[in-house]
Amino acid sequence: MTTTTTGDDVLVFPPIWLRDNCPCEHCRDPRNGQKLFGITDLPADLTVRGTEVSADTITVTFGPDGHRGPFSRAWLDAQLSASSGDGRTEAGKRLWQAQDLDGRLPAADWAAYRDDPAERARVLSAVRDLGFALLHGTPTEEETVLAIARTFGYPRETNYGTLFDVRVEPDPSNLAFTGMRIAPHTDNPYRDPVPTLQLLHCLANAADGGDSGLVDGFTAASLLRAEDEEAFRILSTTLVPFAWYDAGTSLRADRPLIDVDPEGHLREVRFNNRSMQALRLDPAATTAFYAAYRRFAEIIARPELLLTFRLDPGDCVIFDNTRLLHARTAFAESGARHLQGCYADLDALTSTLRTLEGTA
Amino acid sequence: MTTTTTGDDVLVFPPIWLRDNCPCEHCRDPRNGQKLFGITDLPADLTVRGTEVSADTITVTFGPDGHRGPFSRAWLDAQLSASSGDGRTEAGKRLWQAQDLDGRLPAADWAAYRDDPAERARVLSAVRDLGFALLHGTPTEEETVLAIARTFGYPRETNYGTLFDVRVEPDPSNLAFTGMRIAPHTDNPYRDPVPTLQLLHCLANAADGGDSGLVDGFTAASLLRAEDEEAFRILSTTLVPFAWYDAGTSLRADRPLIDVDPEGHLREVRFNNRSMQALRLDPAATTAFYAAYRRFAEIIARPELLLTFRLDPGDCVIFDNTRLLHARTAFAESGARHLQGCYADLDALTSTLRTLEGTA
Repeated sequence: MTTTTTGDDVLVFPPIWLRDNCPCEHCRDPRNGQKLFGITDLPADLTVRGTEVSADTITVTFGPDGHRGPFSRAWLDAQLSASSGDGRTEAGKRLWQAQDLDGRLPAADWAAYRDDPAERARVLSAVRDLGFALLHGTPTEEETVLAIARTFGYPRETNYGTLFDVRVEPDPSNLAFTGMRIAPHTDNPYRDPVPTLQLLHCLANAADGGDSGLVDGFTAASLLRAEDEEAFRILSTTLVPFAWYDAGTSLRADRPLIDVDPEGHLREVRFNNRSMQALRLDPAATTAFYAAYRRFAEIIARPELLLTFRLDPGDCVIFDNTRLLHARTAFAESGARHLQGCYADLDALTSTLRTLEGTA
Repeated sequence: MTTTTTGDDVLVFPPIWLRDNCPCEHCRDPRNGQKLFGITDLPADLTVRGTEVSADTITVTFGPDGHRGPFSRAWLDAQLSASSGDGRTEAGKRLWQAQDLDGRLPAADWAAYRDDPAERARVLSAVRDLGFALLHGTPTEEETVLAIARTFGYPRETNYGTLFDVRVEPDPSNLAFTGMRIAPHTDNPYRDPVPTLQLLHCLANAADGGDSGLVDGFTAASLLRAEDEEAFRILSTTLVPFAWYDAGTSLRADRPLIDVDPEGHLREVRFNNRSMQALRLDPAATTAFYAAYRRFAEIIARPELLLTFRLDPGDCVIFDNTRLLHARTAFAESGARHLQGCYADLDALTSTLRTLEGTA
């Protein structure tokens, strides 16, 4: 390993930064790596009094208290490059349109995924980078979707249960439970925190129709930003009320359709007219919002953005519900179509992936 | 009920807004209230062609397609007032300092909470408005904390399990599992979505020390905003890397210490030096960040912000982990102190509360 940091080079790091990251056993619990102090426990007038350089360590002596911290030179070197981020915004993604993936869907066979860590890492990295992956050949038994979620994380229980059945119901609480066409949307925008992952597992799909579709919402939002900056600004700054209720539930969240982080990177897309409630803005702002919303919806509806495929029994799609919009074509309510779904969260999935990749 | 909306008054609402909120059975599924169309299904050149007014309804005829929508006048009236929001930001909270609550902690007896919906609503509204509530007299049996979470929502399973034990462990993966003093902090800032609620249930607390403390992070952040606007700006716009890892886990989230919504309202506070990782900013930005961070930490450490109390066996505290910082004093590791905790989410809690309040 090449190290370039010298005793002088360490002075590019402010003393408070060095001290807050001191790796010594008094500063970090050797048992778990957690810091043992708070920021106000550190002197306000910290200085670097001196450095001692060895082959792989620079030991810094701090003033005014004489504390000594042994910094790995390799670690210091790594801090000079830009952060890779947490992989949750567009900065850590590969954005796509349908033709980029047609015929090359990120997919794996269940047995290989289950038994081979490298294959599991490949599938989970597709979910992180592309927003989804498919598993083929999973058991066509009920509750399999929960077992799949547990290969990388934890099902998120909601008022719909730990798992939900997607099939035609006589008195549907949600349009998902009819045979209607469902246009591209994200799930549960009325929930905060929104479920960041969704899994849909196919038990039966003998109905005419009922094909699946996915749209990369980050692609759509980045197109909007390129084509109509003002519309993007409106949708990323207007709080939109979403709601869903039944006899025992009354969920509500006010969130923008496009959420960006403080650096302006795309973080979350919410798109679901079914549960969007009445905006309370002045008439001019209302009209401007609707023009921007229509513009975004028209981009989402472009045929070149819609990736279509069919879930066969034993298939499971895992997708990022903060980014991808999912859809299905209409199907005959008399046909046999039965999916089981569950929600889960991206943080556990990316944790599992980092562990598999050995980048912990 | 007084209604003021007339046929002419309806024209203050833009036609696209009226149509998107049309309550007719063709526009909304009568079975579940969800909208049956998307924004691009509506004509781009909508007009209001005419209105018919009855005692409680204004029926709007739209051009160019002649669609008719029967709007409740009471509903239209309500839309003229400002939105109450979703209650998740400072706009929906009562901010506090310790003296505001000393001797008047929001608390209830378990049996009353369990059996009386009004008492349950009072407790849950304290969690929403003040950020926490206490239950006394709950069973001192293991796993009771999960039963408490299920009175309003769903435990959130994580790598720590569905519930976690807070007691001294021989080889602690986290400083929580030692006898050390823990300064005010929020939990799991390295998780995204962060758990929005935490419950801590006391099974035993015979140790010397081990008292509990809470600080209203929204109060602290609003003081910072008032006292040092630039520091507030820095902390609300700098992405800070948080991480936690063990052999099977590698969690990371880059989020600001103070998260504000697009309207500038406080939404989330993350404060936990234990799991904060090395920032990668240029030296000037690093120094400015640390000055702002110290300023915020000094406000959090003000004695007047810290509410202290002691959890006795059978007590359970429920608190908002996006807002409140929790702390404990040191205790003798030989003493018997045993809490069980779990995470849960605010969306289900506020849903239950709205249902209890009949404001669904």
